[in-house]
Amino acid sequence: MPHNATPLHAIPVVTVSAGLRAGELSGNAPTLLREIAEMLRRLLATDAGSAIDLQALPLTPADLIWLRARLGEGEVAVTLNADGDSSLNETACPGVWWVTHRNPQGAVVSEFIEVAYVPDVVRAPREDVVIGLESLESLSAELS
Amino acid sequence: MPHNATPLHAIPVVTVSAGLRAGELSGNAPTLLREIAEMLRRLLATDAGSAIDLQALPLTPADLIWLRARLGEGEVAVTLNADGDSSLNETACPGVWWVTHRNPQGAVVSEFIEVAYVPDVVRAPREDVVIGLESLESLSAELS
Repeated sequence: MPHNATPLHAIPVVTVSAGLRAGELSGNAPTLLREIAEMLRRLLATDAGSAIDLQALPLTPADLIWLRARLGEGEVAVTLNADGDSSLNETACPGVWWVTHRNPQGAVVSEFIEVAYVPDVVRAPREDVVIGLESLESLSAELS
Repeated sequence: MPHNATPLHAIPVVTVSAGLRAGELSGNAPTLLREIAEMLRRLLATDAGSAIDLQALPLTPADLIWLRARLGEGEVAVTLNADGDSSLNETACPGVWWVTHRNPQGAVVSEFIEVAYVPDVVRAPREDVVIGLESLESLSAELS
């Protein structure tokens, strides 16, 4: 999970009017593109990744489709199978990842844009590598 | 592609006898497990990743099946779609990735074991992030 989320109040979006339908653009998506650019500048300057929780913002389904089309498709896709599937798809904008978490029944439970050289979940934690090495050493000892 | 391959002469395998069939174990796979453990120790000590080219070693198909079963399946899988598909599957041993590159016709062209916190190809290169940011800024300027 992204550990360094951009504070939502920092993104100057307007509230989606109650009358707006799913197929209509709220006008907030271009603001989000500018926010992503700012997140990329921060990544380049400080190596710090960050993420936007798309469900916490006043975006319509049409906004998400518009945004995804503008960001495009990249070459790298990551799937994570742990208590439901997650997909992390690199966009055509390197360093910008579209992240979707699903529950074991396949329903989307959260959706993020993560800005990072590598999404957090892909990195093997050092402590896990230590434990895995111990298992491998035990296995090698049994075999010899 | 892994940039830091283990020199093959450093892995003390024996030559597969000409009479060995595809379904037979050559006896080399346990040696490879010990080599992978050594690569993990190096990763933990120096952060340096490394890789073994499985096609450059005297391994039978049965050896590869045996090895893959011993390493197990992890939670993370990466696909890379660029001039043929590549898959990078984390094994149950964190930091050990089974990497398969295919040509556009789907045939396996190379197979590696990569030892790294994150496989090289997943990381967005900094220079690509700079170029992507410029595109995003142009797009934002057009929209405003």
